[in-house]
Amino acid sequence: MCEANAYIYHDGKEELYLENVDVMRPEGGKLYLRSLFGEQKMFDGEIREISLLNHKIVLQKK
Amino acid sequence: MCEANAYIYHDGKEELYLENVDVMRPEGGKLYLRSLFGEQKMFDGEIREISLLNHKIVLQKK
Repeated sequence: MCEANAYIYHDGKEELYLENVDVMRPEGGKLYLRSLFGEQKMFDGEIREISLLNHKIVLQKK
Repeated sequence: MCEANAYIYHDGKEELYLENVDVMRPEGGKLYLRSLFGEQKMFDGEIREISLLNHKIVLQKK
C-alpha cells in the first residue's frame, strides 16, 4: 500500500491528524483529506512537507 | 516503493513534470520537489490534487 499518515506540526512537535491518507487537495482555502477507508477531513491550514518514502505528510496551521 | 509521479494540469490535460517524487514542500511561494534519485525542481504553481493510491501528484500553474 502506498498511503501516508498526516501530522500537524506545532511547536516542534508532530501530532497525528489522519492515518492512511489517499487523496489530498486544496478546497476553498482549506485542505481536503480522504483516507483509504473513506474518512474525510478538512484542515484549515497548509502543507509543510510531504515525504512519500517516509509515508509522511506534515501540515501546519496558517 | 511509494513514490508518485508529478504532472502539470493544463486545459484538461496532464503533462509529466517529474517522476518518482519523494519530497515536496512549499518554498518561497513555489513548490520544491525532489525525486527518489535526487533530481530537484522548483514549480511555480500549486497542488491541484494528490492521490497516493494512484501514485499521482497533479500540479497547476497559479
